[in-house]
Amino acid sequence: MNKVLITGGAGFLGKRLAKKLLERGQLNGPDGKPRKIDRLVLLDMAAPAGLDDPRIEVITGDIADPALLRRAVDAEVGSIFHLAAVVSGAAEADFDLGMRINLDATRDLLERCRALGHKPRFVFTSSVAVFGGKLPDVVPDDMATMPMSSYGAQKVAGELLVSDYSRKGFLDGRTLRMPTISVRPGKPNAAASSFASGIVREPLNGEAAVAPVAPGTRMWLMSPRRAIENLVHGHDLDAEAVGLPRTISLPGLSVTVQGMVDALRQVAGDAVADRVRWEPDDAIRRIVESWPGAFAATRARALGFTADDNYADVIRAYMEDDMA
Amino acid sequence: MNKVLITGGAGFLGKRLAKKLLERGQLNGPDGKPRKIDRLVLLDMAAPAGLDDPRIEVITGDIADPALLRRAVDAEVGSIFHLAAVVSGAAEADFDLGMRINLDATRDLLERCRALGHKPRFVFTSSVAVFGGKLPDVVPDDMATMPMSSYGAQKVAGELLVSDYSRKGFLDGRTLRMPTISVRPGKPNAAASSFASGIVREPLNGEAAVAPVAPGTRMWLMSPRRAIENLVHGHDLDAEAVGLPRTISLPGLSVTVQGMVDALRQVAGDAVADRVRWEPDDAIRRIVESWPGAFAATRARALGFTADDNYADVIRAYMEDDMA
Repeated sequence: MNKVLITGGAGFLGKRLAKKLLERGQLNGPDGKPRKIDRLVLLDMAAPAGLDDPRIEVITGDIADPALLRRAVDAEVGSIFHLAAVVSGAAEADFDLGMRINLDATRDLLERCRALGHKPRFVFTSSVAVFGGKLPDVVPDDMATMPMSSYGAQKVAGELLVSDYSRKGFLDGRTLRMPTISVRPGKPNAAASSFASGIVREPLNGEAAVAPVAPGTRMWLMSPRRAIENLVHGHDLDAEAVGLPRTISLPGLSVTVQGMVDALRQVAGDAVADRVRWEPDDAIRRIVESWPGAFAATRARALGFTADDNYADVIRAYMEDDMA
Repeated sequence: MNKVLITGGAGFLGKRLAKKLLERGQLNGPDGKPRKIDRLVLLDMAAPAGLDDPRIEVITGDIADPALLRRAVDAEVGSIFHLAAVVSGAAEADFDLGMRINLDATRDLLERCRALGHKPRFVFTSSVAVFGGKLPDVVPDDMATMPMSSYGAQKVAGELLVSDYSRKGFLDGRTLRMPTISVRPGKPNAAASSFASGIVREPLNGEAAVAPVAPGTRMWLMSPRRAIENLVHGHDLDAEAVGLPRTISLPGLSVTVQGMVDALRQVAGDAVADRVRWEPDDAIRRIVESWPGAFAATRARALGFTADDNYADVIRAYMEDDMA
């Protein structure tokens, strides 16, 4: 029996990853060869809607609850995608909540994997929010992290643990530093980057949207489709190919917020693009403008990770995948 | 009442710092002006020997014990020097012990400071062990950390917390990344860098010593005298001058291990220097050779931190300070 666990499995990325894994039916095992997925365990605070497959097992509850983790991570779990997190704005507003979920629960999960003894494969997602301060236009792989948010600090701490647990042979981890995902479907959330989906999604749905940063602010973006491809690719890489550290800054698409609105205008017309209002919000600007707008991602490209080609196509993919 | 707390206060650096602070009698307060030290609290597993001053209060016990921390960090504590740690070799041999002391106890201490509400000044010591992997000959301030030991990973996590707690206004922290301290008095310890003192100290005391790394291995060193000066200097800097991140890589002296033995020969003669035997030890090499041999330390120098001039003088200072 080979189980695959997705934490945050009811979230938008988690559900999309679940669908992809059910379609594929397999992931590489410890020997580097494809292994059938017998069961897909989705762990989240609420049950995911719209997924129906006999291989799915849903576990709901607080990921910071050790009893829940023991239930979710048993001896048959071969792979874990740890996507559950308190997003940047929420972790900034509630420091203790962010520490509990982003740091403590991550560590508990790693400890649980260590206790299994068979070195499960562990894919952790990190973020551009680990960077801040004075940065070059294109951030190289060996740039120092300097989080300007608690979320970013907690993510770096998680990266360190994933690398050290891997180095010690407790599990086989890899951390993917994800660009900002755009376009996310659904509602705005408490992430400081929420607008990076909202300024496309809301206008396409006939609603007004606010761009809270300067038009020239450069974002490092990835579409949900591409993110899922890269998560699966990151899982399936051999540990020797990844090496140390286990943290990999992914390639992405570098676009200014003005460029995003221009692409929206190109794809959907003036009436839609004119629904975006520019209204600077200092709290959001402080966080978002501390993030880098482009990365070299040299190591990731050499490992076969890929980026979207242009933002107009990203918008078209959103319309295709997520607009009913 | 203004109390200053030193964790690891019975250790060699802790005791030396205590002596210096008692001599000085003051440290800068939150307003940047000198403030009298009314009490010096030394927290460690055992009581420090050889310190006698009415201002000293000794608290012994496990720093990971919350009740002990509550006793040690009360409303009158204005400054904390957090030196207590499980050293690199020991944290590698006992992963859980390293996590408990180097990460959990550091976090508990930061939480305790946060609970006080008056933003005590917090000086944390980190290490060259936060770096590893492929490094340039001279490591710049914005180099990515990449610990190759659990000790290093735990220290980076502590650095991140100190910066984030400072950014959030929970306390006024600063982390000093210390070079390897040489020459430490006393006995060898479980640090992978223990030999960097042993190859001078033991021969001077008539004993044989082993150099477990290649002669060309370049070390980044600082004498105990200089370390204490820099710790006090780091404490007394204004928060605005330090800025973010609160982590500062200190300047140091870059010497090969062969150069250290040559300096010993110059200061103490052939008979003494010939007591050093070259016997590579793979476990120690793996850790020590992952550390950088030189840093730019641009920011630290601009902030007024200083390095030793040459290793022969460092040996002479050891003979003066520590050989009875």
